[in-house]
Amino acid sequence: MNCRSLPILEFIRTVGKENVLTTLEERFCYSYDASKLNALPECVVLPGSAEEIAELVKLANRDRFPIFPRGAGTGMVGASIPAGGGLVISLRRLNRILEIDPENMFAIVEPGVVTGEFQRKVLQYGLFYPPDPASLQFSTLGGNVAMCAGGPRAVKYGVTRDYVMGLEAVLPTGSIIRTGTRTMKGVVGYDLTRLLVGSEGTLGIFTKLTLRLIPAPEDVRTLMAVFPRIDDAARTVCEIIKNRIIPSTLELLDQATIQAVENYLHMGLPLNCEALLLIEVDGRSCLLDEDALRIERICRQNGASQTEVARDPTDRERLWRARRAISPALGQIRPGKINEDVTVPRTLIPTLIRSIRTLAEKYKLIIVCFGHAGDGNIHTNIMLNRKDKDELARAEKAVEELFRIVLQLGGTLSGEHGIGITKSPFFQWEVGAEGFQAMWKIKQALDPLNIMNPGKMFVPNRSFFQS
Amino acid sequence: MNCRSLPILEFIRTVGKENVLTTLEERFCYSYDASKLNALPECVVLPGSAEEIAELVKLANRDRFPIFPRGAGTGMVGASIPAGGGLVISLRRLNRILEIDPENMFAIVEPGVVTGEFQRKVLQYGLFYPPDPASLQFSTLGGNVAMCAGGPRAVKYGVTRDYVMGLEAVLPTGSIIRTGTRTMKGVVGYDLTRLLVGSEGTLGIFTKLTLRLIPAPEDVRTLMAVFPRIDDAARTVCEIIKNRIIPSTLELLDQATIQAVENYLHMGLPLNCEALLLIEVDGRSCLLDEDALRIERICRQNGASQTEVARDPTDRERLWRARRAISPALGQIRPGKINEDVTVPRTLIPTLIRSIRTLAEKYKLIIVCFGHAGDGNIHTNIMLNRKDKDELARAEKAVEELFRIVLQLGGTLSGEHGIGITKSPFFQWEVGAEGFQAMWKIKQALDPLNIMNPGKMFVPNRSFFQS
Repeated sequence: MNCRSLPILEFIRTVGKENVLTTLEERFCYSYDASKLNALPECVVLPGSAEEIAELVKLANRDRFPIFPRGAGTGMVGASIPAGGGLVISLRRLNRILEIDPENMFAIVEPGVVTGEFQRKVLQYGLFYPPDPASLQFSTLGGNVAMCAGGPRAVKYGVTRDYVMGLEAVLPTGSIIRTGTRTMKGVVGYDLTRLLVGSEGTLGIFTKLTLRLIPAPEDVRTLMAVFPRIDDAARTVCEIIKNRIIPSTLELLDQATIQAVENYLHMGLPLNCEALLLIEVDGRSCLLDEDALRIERICRQNGASQTEVARDPTDRERLWRARRAISPALGQIRPGKINEDVTVPRTLIPTLIRSIRTLAEKYKLIIVCFGHAGDGNIHTNIMLNRKDKDELARAEKAVEELFRIVLQLGGTLSGEHGIGITKSPFFQWEVGAEGFQAMWKIKQALDPLNIMNPGKMFVPNRSFFQS
Repeated sequence: MNCRSLPILEFIRTVGKENVLTTLEERFCYSYDASKLNALPECVVLPGSAEEIAELVKLANRDRFPIFPRGAGTGMVGASIPAGGGLVISLRRLNRILEIDPENMFAIVEPGVVTGEFQRKVLQYGLFYPPDPASLQFSTLGGNVAMCAGGPRAVKYGVTRDYVMGLEAVLPTGSIIRTGTRTMKGVVGYDLTRLLVGSEGTLGIFTKLTLRLIPAPEDVRTLMAVFPRIDDAARTVCEIIKNRIIPSTLELLDQATIQAVENYLHMGLPLNCEALLLIEVDGRSCLLDEDALRIERICRQNGASQTEVARDPTDRERLWRARRAISPALGQIRPGKINEDVTVPRTLIPTLIRSIRTLAEKYKLIIVCFGHAGDGNIHTNIMLNRKDKDELARAEKAVEELFRIVLQLGGTLSGEHGIGITKSPFFQWEVGAEGFQAMWKIKQALDPLNIMNPGKMFVPNRSFFQS
């Protein structure tokens, strides 16, 4: 496909000249995401309404060119990459918070609103929008919903799916639908809302989102616990929850992560321990000190050599520094990494981590594990220099083996990143041929010409994985 | 369609002679549900495995006869009625709890497990399965999932959808799929789990369900508050939640309901008040007395003339007696009723109830309102004698007008009962022509011969509504 095949003049008529980008420099900005994959689109448009998007989608169906909806481009799996070229539809201009209803506790937003900004805004009403992907200061609600983003707080509050009550979307044939309700309950017809949540831009382009809000927790307590043995840390995670305390955050850092962070920050992290837990509880103020004490006790009973409760916000910030420094710290080990967000039932975290250590030895790789232990979501980072073809080949073999192990443990290949391009070769491993067929039938039914975000999920595309 | 067109011998070969029911008496037992609609099936089978169901579904596709999956037949909208005749597939024999994993807090069950029994079983592990449709002592988990059942506790805990992590189902073409995960997170492909939840038996027959469990609340407190004015009661509902107390139950009874219950039970309910709230809070024991006190204060500040906190379980039982007696009590007013479970944003409950009063006057009907005020789900009962054709005609007009009002208020036609047969004439009013088309495309993609539970949702069928 080349530039001339796109009806640029009609794009200009639809969204205005200033919202059609065709120069190489402009298009380059919309060619990549956090997966480090990239592909140059022929054109980028920035529509300002659902009607304009519907018009663009109808043009795509008429002229049979692919369209790629795009939020902030912070995705980890290449789901917004215009693979093969075509038209990128950026939702950047649809960035208004249309309504916040503090009494009925919902908000209606456009997809381009930045998640962190939305959270700060609703907090002014004493309300809380819990999903907190690491990208939340940049990523948009539309992108979060398209990928069903997670985050540390999922262990207590669930994921993006649990906060989408309804939406307006342009379907792949250009019709505009409104799904769901403004109420907790609603059972009228198929749940198109949840079908579209996590559909990775392949079934519809969101133009409005009705999001559920909850009362903001009164306060929070933050703890850190150091474990000489990682098995003890993993068991502690289960013990806390068995004691009916559901922390709002239950993060685990393994030894390699601690080492990397300490090398980077020099903040005095203990290097002789196998794991560190960062734990937060939130809710009613009057309970939190008791909860923190109980968690400290559970940690110590289960092998923690050291525990620490943050005394004040500054202290809390210090404890979080280690967690936040992970990404830049890892950059010092190798320039690149493959970050897999595999998830297993939480009792199987020790088994998973032992298997990952074996893989690291077998394939002579540095594999760093950290993540959301409370919900079994362990970010497994294979550190690599992509220019080292041998290392890359070993890493790919390790990923394949990792995925087999995770599925044997009853886990999932992706807790929060999605399939996109990078995981499409493994998609069927998890959902099976029958599940794959059912999903593909739905895709074909709603997008008969395969116009909307093609080449994702359903297309095994090893060359992208290797790029 | 008549009996001879069904391959009875092949049914017998598939599920065994004792599990194929063909006599009139047997078939009659599977002809109705709680909607009072009925239609006689040609045959009823009770399969014992997913493989047997797949076999039956393949026969249906081969010979083109309709199949009607059925749980306990407690549905309110005729969704399990074999309208037009065909084969009823009862899930009664698939009634095992296969696994309870207390550490990872999920259970795997077959669809025929009775909801209340499941709740008691998991409670032995200190775990809680919150969805509590009124039918829970009879209805099955499979039926609850097929209809996305709600209940009083939805205001705090959400609905059935929020507790289904994954499932195994036989699709309308006979293939068996496994969807979802055993983990809180999981974003691999389209969310077939939630597409099938609430699909009312039209997209798949469940053979296994993976259900999320949570720690059981330590204790509960029950309160009753009497309001001379119903607007005050409705405002109180919002005020409680604005004060960051989310009760586990927030039930409202209007004056007509109170009168009916008092006539039935003679328990000394105040007859000169317009509304009564039955409120429960659950959670950490140490907070509940304070919560109950705060709720009492909010009730009084907002116009309650009387409040009462249950002192012990016997006292609690007494307060619940009024709520539980509603159904039999209403039977004394008229032999029949049309029970619509409309839902509006909770601040609009007073508007809704005023409109309903106007409708009652306009159409000279007795309309009784009660229900789950916390989530805006008001059960609107038009009392009638179905043999009185004039009353029935007026009731139907009132329902139509009610639905228009609810949609104008940004509400939904059904909070928890579903569409089935009785609401199919109004289905498009809510989802729109475009939404309807999208759902119908999905149905056709997965069930090209329209074999599975046909004549539901998508087919306006006034004659059934009138039967």
